[in-house]
Amino acid sequence: MALDQGPCRPCRERTCGRTGPRGHGAVQAVTGQVIAGLPTLVWVLDYASVLVFALTGALVASRAQLDPVGFVFMAAMTAVGGGTLRDLILGRDMVFWVARPSLVVVAAVAAMVVFWTAHRFESRYRLLLWLDAFALSVAVPAGVAVALAGGFSPVIVVIMGVVTGTFGGLMRDVVGNEVPLVLKQGELYLTAAFGGALAAVLLVWMGLGRVEALAACGVVTFVLRAGSMVRGWKLPVYRPRPPRTRG
Amino acid sequence: MALDQGPCRPCRERTCGRTGPRGHGAVQAVTGQVIAGLPTLVWVLDYASVLVFALTGALVASRAQLDPVGFVFMAAMTAVGGGTLRDLILGRDMVFWVARPSLVVVAAVAAMVVFWTAHRFESRYRLLLWLDAFALSVAVPAGVAVALAGGFSPVIVVIMGVVTGTFGGLMRDVVGNEVPLVLKQGELYLTAAFGGALAAVLLVWMGLGRVEALAACGVVTFVLRAGSMVRGWKLPVYRPRPPRTRG
Amino acid sequence: MALDQGPCRPCRERTCGRTGPRGHGAVQAVTGQVIAGLPTLVWVLDYASVLVFALTGALVASRAQLDPVGFVFMAAMTAVGGGTLRDLILGRDMVFWVARPSLVVVAAVAAMVVFWTAHRFESRYRLLLWLDAFALSVAVPAGVAVALAGGFSPVIVVIMGVVTGTFGGLMRDVVGNEVPLVLKQGELYLTAAFGGALAAVLLVWMGLGRVEALAACGVVTFVLRAGSMVRGWKLPVYRPRPPRTRG
Repeated sequence: MALDQGPCRPCRERTCGRTGPRGHGAVQAVTGQVIAGLPTLVWVLDYASVLVFALTGALVASRAQLDPVGFVFMAAMTAVGGGTLRDLILGRDMVFWVARPSLVVVAAVAAMVVFWTAHRFESRYRLLLWLDAFALSVAVPAGVAVALAGGFSPVIVVIMGVVTGTFGGLMRDVVGNEVPLVLKQGELYLTAAFGGALAAVLLVWMGLGRVEALAACGVVTFVLRAGSMVRGWKLPVYRPRPPRTRG
Repeated sequence: MALDQGPCRPCRERTCGRTGPRGHGAVQAVTGQVIAGLPTLVWVLDYASVLVFALTGALVASRAQLDPVGFVFMAAMTAVGGGTLRDLILGRDMVFWVARPSLVVVAAVAAMVVFWTAHRFESRYRLLLWLDAFALSVAVPAGVAVALAGGFSPVIVVIMGVVTGTFGGLMRDVVGNEVPLVLKQGELYLTAAFGGALAAVLLVWMGLGRVEALAACGVVTFVLRAGSMVRGWKLPVYRPRPPRTRG
Repeated sequence: MALDQGPCRPCRERTCGRTGPRGHGAVQAVTGQVIAGLPTLVWVLDYASVLVFALTGALVASRAQLDPVGFVFMAAMTAVGGGTLRDLILGRDMVFWVARPSLVVVAAVAAMVVFWTAHRFESRYRLLLWLDAFALSVAVPAGVAVALAGGFSPVIVVIMGVVTGTFGGLMRDVVGNEVPLVLKQGELYLTAAFGGALAAVLLVWMGLGRVEALAACGVVTFVLRAGSMVRGWKLPVYRPRPPRTRG
């Protein structure tokens, strides 16, 4: 796709002897001999998480009654926010959507579809919650996959899963003036992302293949999040035991 | 200016065969044979946008009744916020104000001037709005110019114009607890930035020179924003058609 | 510590002829012939600031009554937020906690300790304020040290001290929905960070050793902040002199 011709292919030589598949699109575009499966899976995860997070961003824009450009802004920020932070922190050669601008086009199209159709849904907030749960379950494995491919320490892999899964939604909620889902009391959200990422790391450590581990990661994340939404699963929250005197 | 001696000139060799003028100050400082015009223009755009955005940051500080150091903080954050995000996302060798710290000094001086003079203005909010419109019209072309010079895809060039133009102001408004101008209903703000950046990309694609395209970018941005402020120009906003039952 | 084996040691060759000690852990881990003192000091500053900022993040989580994963999230974000921004802006090869993931483990353990013990404290807000003051006094010198080691301009060194000291707490307060300490009226906070960083730069410029300058930096920061909390020291804030007519 001509749209995705980045300017900077030679950059890749600057990378540091990492031998595994490093970045999905990048690897896929350049080397033909990549083991099929992982890069394709990550590529699919990237597009899917951008698409679904963009829908949630546009739904928040609809709740704030923005204009079409506002829809695109919220959708794009939500869609790429988490992955951008991940790529900056990991020091990847190019932020994933700069390497593949078509991802942003996908987000923009999704925003316009929501602009024209959101009024048909009975409860946009309910739709938002479920789409967000789905996007989370796709973005966490996407983050885990990139960090695994970069050969980072297990602690960093888990953090990158959580960061990729949650920061886009956090930015969406802060800018769109919603209560951040991330910190909503009595819901598993961070815990779902953390549980999924941890499952992936443990399964890889136990020798499972990466594709299987990533699939398990998505399933664990979704089950925890959906269980929290439908059945009210939660962790105990902090409760101050003596009455708080001040502060 | 001795102030702006960065530590890291050899770094530039890490860059990846990009042949065009890549960064303004950097190029200007090192190679003598740059085509005059573009780098000088970008240099002027950078200082102008830092100066005017700093004034808006200081005005928000005055509305929040901060102390002088708070003025400098808000001014500097607003002035360099958008360009910093742009430089991180594009992976430039150095963030623009790290390469030229005098930009931050300009912002600090502007903050102190506002601290001593803001009480003279009848309506600081009106002044803030107009300065912000002017800063936007300068920062969008600055962002477009950097991305064009880096040889990025048109989609990325447009995004970088919008990001450079809007994120400093967004941070200013979120931290200073103002309603973000970016998302204010019924105003062209994002649309003005987007329209200006799109105009630049289209004009360059049609073969116009970069300097002319950047000038057109600034004019389009300012006209759209000013038209919105003075004449009430706006895009239709999203309105839910059936009554919202829940959420 | 095996935990901290980054994947990317050869990366360091990409750095640009900087000859001084560049990054603490990195330098320490690789070259044996570093002058003792500075790297060890910076290493201690890093762990200390992560630990104490993590405690403050967990205290904010306790005030928001989050669950244990929420505690860890708030603690980790507060602990590494400022240093992450510093490392991204300075373009360091690796963000400090990616190079040493054990820092994040320290933050997580601190969060759990607070989860189990916070109810014992009579006033968690008072404890939060004092821990934050202490963390600030440790993080500012940590930021100054990294920028000094990178050979950056004095303006950048001061900014990095302030950024490293204040951004973690700012993110904590914005996400945790507290009034940002950074911008609280009539308190020295930014000023304390700025004063400490400025003191360090001046002392280095006057020929004092770095270790001594960093110690002075921490002391100045703490004295200014504590003086503000205990004795009410402050700078004059902006006051509009004519009555504000609009806006």
